[in-house]
Amino acid sequence: MINVTNGKIMRLLVDDEPFDVRYGQVQRHERVLDLRNGVLRRTVCWTSPVGRTVNISSVRLVSFTQRAIAAISYEVEPLDAPVRVVVQSELVANETIPVMGKDPRGGTVLPSSLECEEHQAQGTCGLLIHHTRFSGLRVGAAMDHQIEGPPETFVESQHSPDVVRIVITAPLQPGQRLRVVKFLAYGWSSQRSRPAMHDQVSAALSLARFTGWEGLLAEQRAYLDTFWGHGDVEIEGDPHIQQAVRFALFHVLQAGCRGEQRPIPAKGLTGPGYDGHTFWDTETFVLPLVTLTFPHATADALRWRHAILDQARERARLLGRRGAAFPWRTIHGKESSGYWPASTAAFHLNADIAYAVTQYIEATEDRAFEEEVGLELLVETARLWNSLGYENADGQFRIDGVTGPDEYSALVDNNVYTNLMAQHNLSAAAETAKRYPEVASALGVDAAERDSWQHAAERMFIPYDQRLGVTPQDDTFTQHKVWNFATTTPEQYPLFRNFPYYDLYCKQVIKQADLILAMHLRGDAFTPEQKARNFAYYEPLTVRDSSLSAATQAVIAAEVGQLQLAYDYLGEAAFMDLSDLEHNVRDGIHIASLAGAWTALVMGFGGVRLQGGMLSFAPRLPEQITRLAFQLVFRNRCLRVDVCANEVSYRLLSGAPLTVRHYGDELSLTRTSAVTRPIPPIQAGPRPTQPPGRAPVAMSFICTEAGGRYFGQNLGPKKAR
Amino acid sequence: MINVTNGKIMRLLVDDEPFDVRYGQVQRHERVLDLRNGVLRRTVCWTSPVGRTVNISSVRLVSFTQRAIAAISYEVEPLDAPVRVVVQSELVANETIPVMGKDPRGGTVLPSSLECEEHQAQGTCGLLIHHTRFSGLRVGAAMDHQIEGPPETFVESQHSPDVVRIVITAPLQPGQRLRVVKFLAYGWSSQRSRPAMHDQVSAALSLARFTGWEGLLAEQRAYLDTFWGHGDVEIEGDPHIQQAVRFALFHVLQAGCRGEQRPIPAKGLTGPGYDGHTFWDTETFVLPLVTLTFPHATADALRWRHAILDQARERARLLGRRGAAFPWRTIHGKESSGYWPASTAAFHLNADIAYAVTQYIEATEDRAFEEEVGLELLVETARLWNSLGYENADGQFRIDGVTGPDEYSALVDNNVYTNLMAQHNLSAAAETAKRYPEVASALGVDAAERDSWQHAAERMFIPYDQRLGVTPQDDTFTQHKVWNFATTTPEQYPLFRNFPYYDLYCKQVIKQADLILAMHLRGDAFTPEQKARNFAYYEPLTVRDSSLSAATQAVIAAEVGQLQLAYDYLGEAAFMDLSDLEHNVRDGIHIASLAGAWTALVMGFGGVRLQGGMLSFAPRLPEQITRLAFQLVFRNRCLRVDVCANEVSYRLLSGAPLTVRHYGDELSLTRTSAVTRPIPPIQAGPRPTQPPGRAPVAMSFICTEAGGRYFGQNLGPKKAR
Repeated sequence: MINVTNGKIMRLLVDDEPFDVRYGQVQRHERVLDLRNGVLRRTVCWTSPVGRTVNISSVRLVSFTQRAIAAISYEVEPLDAPVRVVVQSELVANETIPVMGKDPRGGTVLPSSLECEEHQAQGTCGLLIHHTRFSGLRVGAAMDHQIEGPPETFVESQHSPDVVRIVITAPLQPGQRLRVVKFLAYGWSSQRSRPAMHDQVSAALSLARFTGWEGLLAEQRAYLDTFWGHGDVEIEGDPHIQQAVRFALFHVLQAGCRGEQRPIPAKGLTGPGYDGHTFWDTETFVLPLVTLTFPHATADALRWRHAILDQARERARLLGRRGAAFPWRTIHGKESSGYWPASTAAFHLNADIAYAVTQYIEATEDRAFEEEVGLELLVETARLWNSLGYENADGQFRIDGVTGPDEYSALVDNNVYTNLMAQHNLSAAAETAKRYPEVASALGVDAAERDSWQHAAERMFIPYDQRLGVTPQDDTFTQHKVWNFATTTPEQYPLFRNFPYYDLYCKQVIKQADLILAMHLRGDAFTPEQKARNFAYYEPLTVRDSSLSAATQAVIAAEVGQLQLAYDYLGEAAFMDLSDLEHNVRDGIHIASLAGAWTALVMGFGGVRLQGGMLSFAPRLPEQITRLAFQLVFRNRCLRVDVCANEVSYRLLSGAPLTVRHYGDELSLTRTSAVTRPIPPIQAGPRPTQPPGRAPVAMSFICTEAGGRYFGQNLGPKKAR
Repeated sequence: MINVTNGKIMRLLVDDEPFDVRYGQVQRHERVLDLRNGVLRRTVCWTSPVGRTVNISSVRLVSFTQRAIAAISYEVEPLDAPVRVVVQSELVANETIPVMGKDPRGGTVLPSSLECEEHQAQGTCGLLIHHTRFSGLRVGAAMDHQIEGPPETFVESQHSPDVVRIVITAPLQPGQRLRVVKFLAYGWSSQRSRPAMHDQVSAALSLARFTGWEGLLAEQRAYLDTFWGHGDVEIEGDPHIQQAVRFALFHVLQAGCRGEQRPIPAKGLTGPGYDGHTFWDTETFVLPLVTLTFPHATADALRWRHAILDQARERARLLGRRGAAFPWRTIHGKESSGYWPASTAAFHLNADIAYAVTQYIEATEDRAFEEEVGLELLVETARLWNSLGYENADGQFRIDGVTGPDEYSALVDNNVYTNLMAQHNLSAAAETAKRYPEVASALGVDAAERDSWQHAAERMFIPYDQRLGVTPQDDTFTQHKVWNFATTTPEQYPLFRNFPYYDLYCKQVIKQADLILAMHLRGDAFTPEQKARNFAYYEPLTVRDSSLSAATQAVIAAEVGQLQLAYDYLGEAAFMDLSDLEHNVRDGIHIASLAGAWTALVMGFGGVRLQGGMLSFAPRLPEQITRLAFQLVFRNRCLRVDVCANEVSYRLLSGAPLTVRHYGDELSLTRTSAVTRPIPPIQAGPRPTQPPGRAPVAMSFICTEAGGRYFGQNLGPKKAR
């Protein structure tokens, strides 16, 4: 992944001193990410080395409503003496990028990967068009400026292949100010010509100018009002978690809402980590939130999977399988995980996609999507499973040699998560194909194939360890030696950077929720007693060297009544980036973990599940949270759920009457009044332990306040995705 | 691996035409590898494009007795008219090498990897000293010439950094001849200085000149007389196999006899394949022959392992284990197999080394070696096993997550071959340590550690599949789906070049003898019935995409009475290189497969085993071989075994009386007379089948004679190591 032309740059010269907080004196500095208005505000009061004091304030937005547009309002005002200011507003391509660390997850830096095709500047406008050196993607960036300043204000422009610069010079008296509104338009295409690209960004810029700065702000606010109205989570008793979950929702919205049939990468678009690639994170950890808050974006994300079906079919053929095998990591549909059997064998991704499809359809009843997109995804993934597994002489349908979610095991037989998700995939494909016989027939599905899927689902082998009374993560997992946690030092985590994979693979040590995730997504396949037993068994083995774990552990901890533990896991998920718990937020944020903060609250403490077309609730709060209220979007309705320590009330905010479940009992909800029910008590066992030093960081520790903000506190050894 | 300075080059100009068989006309051409004299003879009668006919004959040797020396005798004689000939005799460094194919096993080509330090030529002498660019190894080559020609013969010399050339010009009448004897000396060192290297090769050259051409020939012959006297195999009824096994013995001798504490690479020094690396091939497939024919070389090869113990200990520590973990592939002791858990986990190599140690000690009673070298190798490998495995709650000692010999499975639990070999390793270490208490104590071994090895050996878990009545290759192997051989086309072999490893790993498909090899090396752990049953089960699953398979299959086929099948496997092993069965002999010969030809004959049809310090025999011939006679070196004795269809005679050629076993019965052998015993009949089941198209190539097909020689016949699809 390479950086596009940078249009954020606005440099300031105060008299003959560049504005640079490392010199002179910062009198005041505040940076606010305004989640309600969707803007980033920065105000600085700075005294230059020669003693000139100025106020500088900027407001930045990337528009939710005009997909090509970003804008900046920039103001300078001298406080104590006249100054001459120069504002340089730029577009810069092939900017020098700081050298990355050695972490293999950090992403690859390609210097000067853009080649210029057009550069121009005139008046207050500038434009750059480049294409990428190898893949030939064309990218255009244009800018225009509205300038308010004293009459002497002077504007000039410069342009070269990689830099376009508009220079605004103004003498300012104290009380006078210079205000520059910069409109930025971006466009890219692998198809369109240079003139078409030129026109595309110019047109986008025209619409932004027409809308105006205030208009963009108003659109942004209106868009977010709708979002918060549909998806907000309110918390009483814990302002830190409250702020963290809204921060998380905002970032997931930014990453997902305007993806429009492009993938949602593991880091969103916030950094170069993982080279911009998309993994199973999207379907399994991000889409559950999206499906129940802004479901149109789930449809888009899955339409992208549908768009790369041909490549997935090709990959399945390459692997000697039928149907489609989606790439373990990719940016445009082709497998990018290299020659590594452990990733090739992580086939569960395909069932994860199928699961996201059925959840979306259950949540929206979007029949057009089901018919056009969903069915084909289900059919092709079911075909994969049917050709990956086989029925042995004892009538068990086995899936051998796969890698499950836990990346500290590889190439195992009958990973329970994989088998349960494949079972769901096969059943869903059979049932959906039956409901759309014509479309199914066009996809080559006949009754025999449908029956074979149903048959495989029914015969799916789920191992069980009678001796321990637990579900093994895979056929032989519980027969392996337990990792020697006692001699593992804190500096040796994440383990994969300090021990050979051979060693991790042959031991009972778990990187990330695997069977625990199966108990979340396929909760119907386990009794409550078995869930508690399994959770107690796997907690002491799970090191969470992945950010894809804490939220799931929170959900199951809450379900089995380990509410304090769930609360700590929630904290870890929610503060992953705000407190930089993994010391790598510079590579980009962890979208899955941020979505996980919502999941831990709504699916954990809210007890929300979506199964068999019905929403069910089993809420229960930890003592620190006195009230949890959240909205959900479901089948063209908006619901509000309000949970206290002892009771919960359900209210339909919009839409037709709806039946939901509360601890198994059906409730009818209408818009006339809320329905309130008591929360039954639960008898939980002793709090399970984690490997030494690997208990979740306690919320009380994370939330040491520093003026109400949470910056990169050092919370112990590095952890990893 | 890079090429040293090439001293073989002798170019000829006949009048103004370079001698080149692609031009002019070849009247006669013969090239003979003389196994008895240890020389390569070439005679050509060639008519140049302008019609001059000359006889050219050369004899080449690489001395067995003078390790630094090679020599060439080169003669030219005109037949029909006077000619002027020019012979250019060269030393060439950084010679351009043909581009290799895409086979990953082919080896890496590094152009111009030698840097010149000294070049000189004077009179008939020339010398080049270079060092390798990165590793700084110094290599010197020197030559001198003895010239016999007419009085007008003129000699001049030229030298430059990469080429030294002695040019001999002579006018020849028909009947006159020019004879040039070229003496070549090589030396290398990572330590010695340039002047020391200069002196080293000069001194070697002096000794060669002193010995003279005839002297070198005589030494060579004497050396080989001893070898053939100790190790020859005589066959009646099958001249092809007779020639092939002698070819094999000669090549193994070349690769191993003067290794002198350097490793024996998989290709010997015959080509760039596998980058000159050494694998488990040496200990498991080459040393059995060496131990019973020229045992001093086994001691040298194992002393090399001993010399790299520090690196192996370091590797074990890196893997979090105790003792020593030898590198899966290496050229100087460091692991070179890269980041690939499947190779890292191929720990069986360590037990293979231990097995070679105990076999050598049993065969030689070399107590000095045992005390100085053997014990430490056994101790450090036993420590590895004790830290790799663990005793579970049921008292089973398990070794999880390893890769056995079969590279179409990886990271499996309780690979039976590995566990049985580790068991032997642990017991041998415990017993040997007990016999050398002081040395053991100096190595840190106490009674508790010895007991722990013995305990682990006793508790070693060997899985068994009750349902099928066979020994599974590993814990779960027989539960996997059987590879779809019916739909696999001949072009799809070797499978690893056409299917993803994921797919191979999760199926019942075997690249090379694994459990079958266990039944050879640990035959004591199986009953005859179980061997027959296992062999019948694994044959239809084994595709032999490795050259490390046919010989082992021959041995077990012979043991279970499948004599015709054994004969075909023998043919495949013996003709691997002579008939270029894998189409890659240009990358170098397959030393292990060549040694396998001997193994198939001596251990297969001869039924030789070495266990508990005693040689045992259970010979039985296929109908094509009417008589098999072989010599063995054993405990300072030389034995001769002479097998016919119905009886076998044993005779001690030298040394003190010896007790051996014939089909379980003890026989006392003395030098006075042979002991003859009948061969009992065996009741074999039906001939096992192989995967379609993967039956061994029938000998009758391989041995289509072409003037008595066997050159690269196309015998079907490519196969692989």
